Amino acid sequence: MNYCGECGARLSIRIPKGDHLPRSVCDQCNTIHYQNPKIVAGCIPTWNDKILFCKRAIEPRWGLWTLPAGFMENKETTAEAAARETREEANAIIENMALYSVFSLPHISQVYMMYRGQLKDGLASPGEESLEVALLNEDAIPWDRLAFPVIEKTLRLFLEDRRQNQYRVHNVTILKHPDGFEFEELP
Amino acid sequence: MNYCGECGARLSIRIPKGDHLPRSVCDQCNTIHYQNPKIVAGCIPTWNDKILFCKRAIEPRWGLWTLPAGFMENKETTAEAAARETREEANAIIENMALYSVFSLPHISQVYMMYRGQLKDGLASPGEESLEVALLNEDAIPWDRLAFPVIEKTLRLFLEDRRQNQYRVHNVTILKHPDGFEFEELP
Repeated sequence: MNYCGECGARLSIRIPKGDHLPRSVCDQCNTIHYQNPKIVAGCIPTWNDKILFCKRAIEPRWGLWTLPAGFMENKETTAEAAARETREEANAIIENMALYSVFSLPHISQVYMMYRGQLKDGLASPGEESLEVALLNEDAIPWDRLAFPVIEKTLRLFLEDRRQNQYRVHNVTILKHPDGFEFEELP
Repeated sequence: MNYCGECGARLSIRIPKGDHLPRSVCDQCNTIHYQNPKIVAGCIPTWNDKILFCKRAIEPRWGLWTLPAGFMENKETTAEAAARETREEANAIIENMALYSVFSLPHISQVYMMYRGQLKDGLASPGEESLEVALLNEDAIPWDRLAFPVIEKTLRLFLEDRRQNQYRVHNVTILKHPDGFEFEELP
């Protein structure tokens, strides 16, 4: 960020009075431009034993498989965002939504919030951001062609909980190391 | 937002190609300026039967009581943000943190994420943003002088769960109506 969105002046970077972190500050109109993590909301839509996957028609990770998810918009609830993304990416309605996971990805300042729920009537088709959608049994999941570590970890937790028929909300941090990703689950 | 943070040009408001919502768009450098909900992270710090409260030394709601909470920063996890706010506002350390609630406040585009946990050594004192801190039993909670509806609802859920000694993660939407607030809890 180089210019003030309010008045157009050049920004400085400094720690405002009473603050403890450097911010982009406008010396002309005194606006402080905070930058905060973004929420990605999505769903694990199920239909009997199957899970709905989308093949990405957009970058990053074009052509890889994912669960329907995307950036939450202003004025939405987290569940509305998750349902909207499922509608946009897979033309699918999800019922009986329940919060399933909250993942922090501090290296990219994102928080993923995934809901589980049933796919209405088993119906889905590719939206504009998907090349293809598929309802897959556990043994058909393309583990080596999943788009993101957060999606793989969410699925592994979900399948384990489903086997035990005992679901709980998982709060996980994904840490990026030079040689890969580390997952830390809070109690 | 009036000016482009990247190049300083005047912004237009329009729906970008492939999008479905109006955005602030720069016609000079083609940057699209998305605006997204912010996360507020905080804690319900307990010490035996007591809960730690802070009296706000800042606006809004100066002089009213709240739980330690504040805006999550980039590069943090949600738990780190909650712990940092507790440290800043109450000079307190919280142990055995567990995610307790996720509240959507769509009218102000915020998502509150509160953790429960134990106050280390029962120690707390007012930070710069607090006039006072207090460890209060349930019957001493100043219900009519709490700062925010999200804090009141979080506390009521927490006290009910504590009575039953059965905690779960609550996912709640707060809707603002002309005559007050409505709370909707997801299953």
